[in-house]
Amino acid sequence: MAKQKPTVPKGTRDFGPEQMAKRTYILDTIKSVYKKYGFQNLETPTMENLSVLTGKYGDEGDQLLFKVVNSGDYLKKVKQEDFEQGAKHMLPKISEKGLRYDLTVPFARYVVMNHGNLSFPFKRYQVQPVWRADRPQRGRYREFYQCDADVVGTDSLLCEAEILAMMGEALTNLKVTDHTIKLNNRKVLTGIAEAIGENGKESELCVAIDKLDKIGVEKVNLELTEQRGFTQEAVDQLAPIYEMSGTTEERIAKMKDFLASSEVGLKGLEELEEVFNYTSKLGVNTDKVEFDVTLARGLSYYTGAIFEVKVNNANMGSISGGGRYDNLTGVFGLEGMSGVGFSFGVDRIYDVLEELDLYPESAIETTKVMLTNFDNAGRDYSLPLLQQLRNAGISAELYPDNAKMKKQMNFANRKNIQYVVLAWEDEMSQGKYSLKNMETGEQEMLSGSEIVEKLRN
Amino acid sequence: MAKQKPTVPKGTRDFGPEQMAKRTYILDTIKSVYKKYGFQNLETPTMENLSVLTGKYGDEGDQLLFKVVNSGDYLKKVKQEDFEQGAKHMLPKISEKGLRYDLTVPFARYVVMNHGNLSFPFKRYQVQPVWRADRPQRGRYREFYQCDADVVGTDSLLCEAEILAMMGEALTNLKVTDHTIKLNNRKVLTGIAEAIGENGKESELCVAIDKLDKIGVEKVNLELTEQRGFTQEAVDQLAPIYEMSGTTEERIAKMKDFLASSEVGLKGLEELEEVFNYTSKLGVNTDKVEFDVTLARGLSYYTGAIFEVKVNNANMGSISGGGRYDNLTGVFGLEGMSGVGFSFGVDRIYDVLEELDLYPESAIETTKVMLTNFDNAGRDYSLPLLQQLRNAGISAELYPDNAKMKKQMNFANRKNIQYVVLAWEDEMSQGKYSLKNMETGEQEMLSGSEIVEKLRN
Repeated sequence: MAKQKPTVPKGTRDFGPEQMAKRTYILDTIKSVYKKYGFQNLETPTMENLSVLTGKYGDEGDQLLFKVVNSGDYLKKVKQEDFEQGAKHMLPKISEKGLRYDLTVPFARYVVMNHGNLSFPFKRYQVQPVWRADRPQRGRYREFYQCDADVVGTDSLLCEAEILAMMGEALTNLKVTDHTIKLNNRKVLTGIAEAIGENGKESELCVAIDKLDKIGVEKVNLELTEQRGFTQEAVDQLAPIYEMSGTTEERIAKMKDFLASSEVGLKGLEELEEVFNYTSKLGVNTDKVEFDVTLARGLSYYTGAIFEVKVNNANMGSISGGGRYDNLTGVFGLEGMSGVGFSFGVDRIYDVLEELDLYPESAIETTKVMLTNFDNAGRDYSLPLLQQLRNAGISAELYPDNAKMKKQMNFANRKNIQYVVLAWEDEMSQGKYSLKNMETGEQEMLSGSEIVEKLRN
Repeated sequence: MAKQKPTVPKGTRDFGPEQMAKRTYILDTIKSVYKKYGFQNLETPTMENLSVLTGKYGDEGDQLLFKVVNSGDYLKKVKQEDFEQGAKHMLPKISEKGLRYDLTVPFARYVVMNHGNLSFPFKRYQVQPVWRADRPQRGRYREFYQCDADVVGTDSLLCEAEILAMMGEALTNLKVTDHTIKLNNRKVLTGIAEAIGENGKESELCVAIDKLDKIGVEKVNLELTEQRGFTQEAVDQLAPIYEMSGTTEERIAKMKDFLASSEVGLKGLEELEEVFNYTSKLGVNTDKVEFDVTLARGLSYYTGAIFEVKVNNANMGSISGGGRYDNLTGVFGLEGMSGVGFSFGVDRIYDVLEELDLYPESAIETTKVMLTNFDNAGRDYSLPLLQQLRNAGISAELYPDNAKMKKQMNFANRKNIQYVVLAWEDEMSQGKYSLKNMETGEQEMLSGSEIVEKLRN
């Protein structure tokens, strides 16, 4: 009976053994940095009440939420007139839960629910999948992992400095050395709007400037004048912003002139200086950190620092980003909870490491050694060694069926197993085994304990 | 503006830092055993097509699937008459995807989809949450983790022996030493039905015997005669089964007599003997393995070995179980794929370790050392040490705000931080720091490099 081959839902993926090994390498590397800086792990449920999710991501976000049908008779609250009013009207009556859309809103919900029991400042990291009913395309999935770290309950700029250190350390550990960490401050953007006489229009300015990399200066300027109501005079004054160059100190000095008339702008520069002051006292190398006055990031909830990381020698957008927000939990009625956080894009980092061939051998290592199984005598002879290897902490397996040499060698090769143990009559008569290195092809006859000793190192 | 406190959906949970640390300890311990035996990690999507899930878990299971509303205008395929026919009829028209109900069906789906690219025997482990719209109650959740390991593509009984070894090793590593691993074989149960003259009724026999622990012999017998059509004569013959005792060898010998007339029953005993033969050759301790001829496990798809693990000194049902199945992927049109697997119940193991107080200190360790922050001078003096500690691989944090001693000490205590570094004028004038052990209260004055050296070990 031929059946149709099963499939996975559009925009979702299986991660087989090799992909999982590589993903685990990336996530473990990042998590170990988070932990070293005092961050603690949090996991929240896959499903959240829609009352928690809805209205947090804009109208478009609400539409991209995956909603879960209520259990049991999900139509019991639906009347004929509800049905007639259509899908959007009926939805709240048949669905109360949705899938997590990001890790920030569940984190805010967790902080509000556990406010009395948490010690602040609370440093948490969270590595879980999120779901968005986006149109799937290359590099954009409906299920993907986020990898967040946030500190809430303090406005100390030491946190910003530590984030710069963590970004650099994680990427260095992943051998992504040719990267740039861009840093800006939302207050500087506000100051720019003030300085060019367009007070209060920093959001419009940010949205346009955010496209600078993609569409270029001229089109950004056109967008500002034609769509966002900026005067030509104001836009003309932006030239030094677009042309900013020099060291961080030089850029800050130039911006102090530019923002001389803007209190908030100067405050932003002061914060930036304090962040650099902290990194310097910590002894963190900031060679790869660049004060980019045009860095805006579309998100309107940032109030202080803004971060973004790019890999210079890979064909990829930003692989990490974040910033400071003054009011994480206000939407749930808890005011004044300032925080700063950032996230690594795991899927993008995965692709970068593929492109630059940066996975270490150890990341894709599977079983260290396979024991062959040509006949029952050889198999029985090898079984004690199998468990001795494991007892020594060495991952080992015995091919479970009698099979031909070629089949077993192919198996070992495809599974990327480093060593193979063979036991023919010759070996058995000497109380030894042949150990074959699958990379070099070298083969030597050794006792069981010699093999254990050799593979342990 | 007072808002209602947000909540999580019924039957779901947040896992805060301490719970996550303990859960990670459990999962890492289990995963490292899986890996040492040559199993490789797989992850499948949270959502599966309902065509994959439906019909695999019985009618009750189908009802317990969480279904996801189709994106966009989910009513577009629904006509007035569909609506009138009610929830069950309408469901397939508004929902095509559901949440993963277990890890076995997605694994089978993965094997079928990737059949041509996998090397068999394929050993995979999978640790992911699953969802069931069950009525939540103590110890039963709507979102919970499963932790499966399976080998498919071989019927070698070495796999069964290795599963016994893995179960024992994982539990020993978790310090759950007082446990019993129960082993039986489905063919033995079939044989029993034959031997008592109720050929082909092993499913009914299994369902009843499965309740032995809960309801006792008399009620099982009543169920067999009154509800399941067994003759009194047949049931009377079960007495030696219920009263089985002695060593494994003795039990097997008694069963050989009992099953003398049943070919399949004797085959089951032969398989059991071969499994024990393998464990003995491997050198695996089987003191904690018990051949329990009444072990049935309700699942009808097992065809060979059946496993179950209980903790003797904890108030908890089975914490692990599994068995051999001859046809994992038949539902997806790929026949003849034999396999054997088992699963650990993470939530139950968590509770057992709590009850028996078995978490090691290291499992709940957070940041190793906190540097205090009483004033800017002390903070700036401590910053270089902070990063030196991290560079040496020691997790460290500095309290980010100037705050009173008591507040910072409380913070360190609540976060379970082992050491605190203090820097007052006295320390600074000597170029040293005070290092306080938070458990013993001991305090000593040391140089930065002495602290790094001390905490590194």
